[in-house]
Amino acid sequence: MIRRDWIKKSALLAGMPALSFGNLEFPQKFDGKVILFQGDSITDGGREKENQMANHPNSLGYGYVKLLSADLLKNHPEKQLRIYNRGISGNKVFQLEERWQMDAIDLQPDLLSILIGVNDFWHTFNGYKGTTETYLSDFRKLVEQTLEKLPDVKIMICEPFVVKGGTAINEEWFPTFNEYQEASKVIATEFKTVFVPYQRYFDKALEKAPASYWAPDGVHPSLAGCELMAEAWMESFKII
Amino acid sequence: MIRRDWIKKSALLAGMPALSFGNLEFPQKFDGKVILFQGDSITDGGREKENQMANHPNSLGYGYVKLLSADLLKNHPEKQLRIYNRGISGNKVFQLEERWQMDAIDLQPDLLSILIGVNDFWHTFNGYKGTTETYLSDFRKLVEQTLEKLPDVKIMICEPFVVKGGTAINEEWFPTFNEYQEASKVIATEFKTVFVPYQRYFDKALEKAPASYWAPDGVHPSLAGCELMAEAWMESFKII
Repeated sequence: MIRRDWIKKSALLAGMPALSFGNLEFPQKFDGKVILFQGDSITDGGREKENQMANHPNSLGYGYVKLLSADLLKNHPEKQLRIYNRGISGNKVFQLEERWQMDAIDLQPDLLSILIGVNDFWHTFNGYKGTTETYLSDFRKLVEQTLEKLPDVKIMICEPFVVKGGTAINEEWFPTFNEYQEASKVIATEFKTVFVPYQRYFDKALEKAPASYWAPDGVHPSLAGCELMAEAWMESFKII
Repeated sequence: MIRRDWIKKSALLAGMPALSFGNLEFPQKFDGKVILFQGDSITDGGREKENQMANHPNSLGYGYVKLLSADLLKNHPEKQLRIYNRGISGNKVFQLEERWQMDAIDLQPDLLSILIGVNDFWHTFNGYKGTTETYLSDFRKLVEQTLEKLPDVKIMICEPFVVKGGTAINEEWFPTFNEYQEASKVIATEFKTVFVPYQRYFDKALEKAPASYWAPDGVHPSLAGCELMAEAWMESFKII
């Protein structure tokens, strides 16, 4: 199912935007209230799992979801947003599917942001048998299923990324990991969703400080890295 | 000890600034690296007490300290900032003094931000015997002691605030609580520190949404309220 109606333009086609919260634009055509973040540990950010409340500091984790939510909530009280985080550490795309009804569909999101994929590759070092093709086909099924049940939901696909120089990153990651990144772009293109091109933001950030500053292990962002992610997400959000 | 040398102008004298992270200016004359936040639960923000690391998401709590630190760290990697949070829930000004050597002086901050006072008043409802005069004299001693031991430290005094309409706020708070706010301004004026006028930011925010949005109990800010605090702090920080 290919959707064309609600996307003005894709971030895939845009250049590297300047990062700035001060110029935050709320997408004019988006009047939804429920925003859901899904993904792995980077999204999870140590959130209190027993606290499922929207907008609550403890339920949003310490990561990019918390930072960008704070910005959205402070700057747009009139929107009456309800922001949920349902990321879970260690998740791969098939594990999203296993809990999708409860942790995505049932929340009836108007906007769904998904960041998944680093574990789909990383865990192959520890015996996980999935391939790039598994990731792509599982991700495609997940989005198809979502659009069948929530035909009006807007989706943002976030690119999985690595920060080169991080302690967990070595030459074994490449070029296979790049294929997972390409697969995430394929999903965004197929379904004409907004795409958050995280890799280019981190590559650019490395010109200013090393991986130890942005994400010591190359996978899990520092607070500075979380803010970079939050600002990058916001840049893509405004073009929904 | 009155210090005049490092203050360009005081926020006391400035009008209500527009809030914007995008226009963030790092104070040109500030080349310090160690920034310390001190205060009560609003500063504490549920931080992991056993984690004393600078810049770490868990050590900074979920509140305004985390949000503004993320912004500072992301936008100024070249400054090599080390940001600490040593707020403790429930603290009154005399309790800062009790732990000041270990939790302030020993960290050798270049910039010290203090938000204290709401409990100095609030706890009088539960038997605490301190008065406005106690708060003022204890606060004065604390700053004097700090400047004796750290003559080059820059200080920001943050105004204690309440969000009217919050569940814990009633008419018994006024006008006595306003005297505590005035006392915090007196300290900032006497020592010519930067002052963060939080009350006016929250009063202004109430034009857009009720207390339940910014700080349900009127004392502890929501995530939106934390972001408001972070942006207000940043506006004052840039004029150090």
